[in-house]
Amino acid sequence: MHNMLMDFNSVESAASRIKPFIRVTPLLQSPLLDELAGTRVLIKPENLQFSGSFKFRGAISALTTLDDEQRKRGVIAYSSGNHAQGIALATQMLGIPATIVMPKDAPKIKLANVQRYGAQIVTYERAFESREEIGQQLSIENEWDLIKPYDDERVIAGQGTVGRELLSQIAISELSRSRVLCCCGGGGLSAGICLALQSQLDNFQFHTVEPSGFDDTARSLAIGSRVANVTKIGSICDAILTPTPGEITFPILQRYAAEGLVVTEDEVLIAMRIAFETLKLVVEPGGAVALAAALFRREALGNDPLIVIISGGNVDSEMFTRALSSIPPRSLLDMLNEW
Amino acid sequence: MHNMLMDFNSVESAASRIKPFIRVTPLLQSPLLDELAGTRVLIKPENLQFSGSFKFRGAISALTTLDDEQRKRGVIAYSSGNHAQGIALATQMLGIPATIVMPKDAPKIKLANVQRYGAQIVTYERAFESREEIGQQLSIENEWDLIKPYDDERVIAGQGTVGRELLSQIAISELSRSRVLCCCGGGGLSAGICLALQSQLDNFQFHTVEPSGFDDTARSLAIGSRVANVTKIGSICDAILTPTPGEITFPILQRYAAEGLVVTEDEVLIAMRIAFETLKLVVEPGGAVALAAALFRREALGNDPLIVIISGGNVDSEMFTRALSSIPPRSLLDMLNEW
Repeated sequence: MHNMLMDFNSVESAASRIKPFIRVTPLLQSPLLDELAGTRVLIKPENLQFSGSFKFRGAISALTTLDDEQRKRGVIAYSSGNHAQGIALATQMLGIPATIVMPKDAPKIKLANVQRYGAQIVTYERAFESREEIGQQLSIENEWDLIKPYDDERVIAGQGTVGRELLSQIAISELSRSRVLCCCGGGGLSAGICLALQSQLDNFQFHTVEPSGFDDTARSLAIGSRVANVTKIGSICDAILTPTPGEITFPILQRYAAEGLVVTEDEVLIAMRIAFETLKLVVEPGGAVALAAALFRREALGNDPLIVIISGGNVDSEMFTRALSSIPPRSLLDMLNEW
Repeated sequence: MHNMLMDFNSVESAASRIKPFIRVTPLLQSPLLDELAGTRVLIKPENLQFSGSFKFRGAISALTTLDDEQRKRGVIAYSSGNHAQGIALATQMLGIPATIVMPKDAPKIKLANVQRYGAQIVTYERAFESREEIGQQLSIENEWDLIKPYDDERVIAGQGTVGRELLSQIAISELSRSRVLCCCGGGGLSAGICLALQSQLDNFQFHTVEPSGFDDTARSLAIGSRVANVTKIGSICDAILTPTPGEITFPILQRYAAEGLVVTEDEVLIAMRIAFETLKLVVEPGGAVALAAALFRREALGNDPLIVIISGGNVDSEMFTRALSSIPPRSLLDMLNEW
């Protein structure tokens, strides 16, 4: 089975294709955050990526593989969130027509963002229509290239460039002593980063992080096969609510990832507040789960240095205000003196 | 008089002294922000600097000039805000004892931050005591090196490294076509950046930006001599409320800076909201005035590409929540569709 897995070459070629378009995100650090987490924490802030999340990397990676004919015909994608915005901005930059299948009840701000980037929107009823089927059908009818949010090797390779940047920003010796924590939905970012890291490291500790109730990856990794979540909605972490790990992504995670971690919504809101306070970053709920694990899962992580991937920052002001009024637990509050 | 001005060499040596300690901040950009501003806007986010503002650069620049004897004896600074935090963190990193003179009624969070970094605090009564006198006296009594917030060549040189980074991040041809907008209090950051830019550019357009009511630099530049603000308090832009341009900084600005710009508090709050929305950055009021000018002073700026220095992000959650509920004017709202 191993020889069926994607390898680092795909990440390498994605990196050279997308280099002119993406932003290399910095590594950030805060002495106060280190104190709160009880260990050194390096932050990779993909909320500062174009379109406000890492999804732009995968989008532009897929688009830059298309030939001129296909570019003229256009592409289609389905997503209610960050993948939609990534595809919409990337197609706008490259002048490629794009159609995005989005639920009729998607937040207005997300519909507006996608429209603003010039993509066409097709809405569907979440209750009785399948976005996968609509996407597939429109793709065939119109000869539009379908770019899936995570089960697409071109997309996974693009997300893997986050890991490739880490390799150029942190000494290998330090990377091998650290644990990498990554927000996980369908697993495209996690799988991509693992592919990049295994190219240079014989051993590394990589943990997916998910919100409780949507821990399909953690459970699938524990059991050894893909299981699904019971519910599809009902978390503030809208960016990473996928029903089940991806077909392509899961075997990669199974080979390279350690135990999957799970955090609560309260922990996510506090992590958002702590990112505001210590990093001066706007992080969305789904983008903050890995930081929440760094703060609240020390029993699983020991005192190893941590590398935390912040995956996105597309949050509305109501939710952000809610995070700002969250109350850290006593143990952190004491450290923050009268915070 | 010109030969009395500091020159680029001081910035160069500061840069090599502080390199191991500071974070090189990235250049950020947002297509939506470009649309809102009506021109291309590059952002230099010094809110991502250690201690949450550019002040850390000047602090570590001054401290790294001290000999071992002086390092043992320690330093003193006066500030109620970002300079205090910059000095406190920098002295903690270098193991130098520090005392900070702060007003008794300073926000608890700022007192707590400074204490957390291990500095000793001496409080004074804003109404009838002078922080300058207290600082001077304690400095003499204890042989502590006094590090002033802006009228200190070591500090100005450190802040100038922001400009030196710009020179390495933007092509000279692009820099010379652009206008640089910089938040301005005492003028340390502005003067430092001007010193850096003039080393490579024969001509450049540099604008200080201040909040209305505290436009001492704009008026001083217009008149040609240092004038003072009428009031000392009463603006949300607490980080940049200095009574008058600095003795050392003003002649530098007089030589190199163009017209000083002024923005209103409402414009500042909207700029903070737009930074949240488009850049995923937490910006404090005083750190957002240059961005406010980019959005609201097009009549003065024309359509030139802009480089905006965001100077800090040390804002409490109440003020940030207030910014998030600010309402952009109709012209921007239309562009944002149902924002």
